[in-house]
Amino acid sequence: MKELYGSPGTKSGLMLRIGQCLFAASSIGVMASATGFSTSTAFCYLIASMGLEFLWSFGLVCIEVHALKFYKDLHNQIIMSLFAVGDWVIAMLSLAAACSSAGVAILFTKDTDFCKNETSFSCNMFPISIAFAFASWFLLAVSSCIMLWLVVSI
Amino acid sequence: MKELYGSPGTKSGLMLRIGQCLFAASSIGVMASATGFSTSTAFCYLIASMGLEFLWSFGLVCIEVHALKFYKDLHNQIIMSLFAVGDWVIAMLSLAAACSSAGVAILFTKDTDFCKNETSFSCNMFPISIAFAFASWFLLAVSSCIMLWLVVSI
Repeated sequence: MKELYGSPGTKSGLMLRIGQCLFAASSIGVMASATGFSTSTAFCYLIASMGLEFLWSFGLVCIEVHALKFYKDLHNQIIMSLFAVGDWVIAMLSLAAACSSAGVAILFTKDTDFCKNETSFSCNMFPISIAFAFASWFLLAVSSCIMLWLVVSI
Repeated sequence: MKELYGSPGTKSGLMLRIGQCLFAASSIGVMASATGFSTSTAFCYLIASMGLEFLWSFGLVCIEVHALKFYKDLHNQIIMSLFAVGDWVIAMLSLAAACSSAGVAILFTKDTDFCKNETSFSCNMFPISIAFAFASWFLLAVSSCIMLWLVVSI
């Protein structure tokens, strides 16, 4: 199997996973601290989805650190297929969460006067959380493509 | 190259493309006839995205009908790669549009009393249009996976 930039068991792969964790955690942190996020199901779903992505990526960070420390080879058909399926499913859920939240945030800030009228809402924090979610999704999408490439190139 | 169910130049492939066209057109039709859709950018984006998907799938229907009628072989590396890239890009845009619209529709119907107060809005039509958009995206996602499989299995 090819040794690709970002593949599991390499330093670049570990960096990608750490990036996913950091962005997902930042997205949760910013959204959870924004007043009024619970008004919209989409924002609650964003927190749930980013929580799932954080858990998945954190689990993979632990596996990759272990593999790097003890020189374990993760390039195994079954392991790679599991990583690929997990990455694709979670990437799709994250994209869905980020997009649905973006739709609601645009409605609040641009389409209606909701944010002007409801001054108690932390309207300026919603887009920041969504931007972090998109960044986290982008890194996960990169990992997903690398995984898929590695699985098919065996 | 393998002859797969749903691959271009086969009757099943043509059926998939016709299904994508029909669902995309239905989504546009229902959303455009719903009063008040222009309030939300997400709903306008849904129409634009479904329009793009309709044009793409309709173009491919024409190509596939031509290939079936004149026994042309579409299993060519360049053609398949172009179809695969187009399918993936448009599938991602469609998913983003359907999810952002779903976020706004849930906000209107469940999270707030917007639909109860604004009786002039066709709130019952938004979910129908979004369901059609998800059906259209699902068929496009099936085509995308078949295309990717065909491209990598050459």
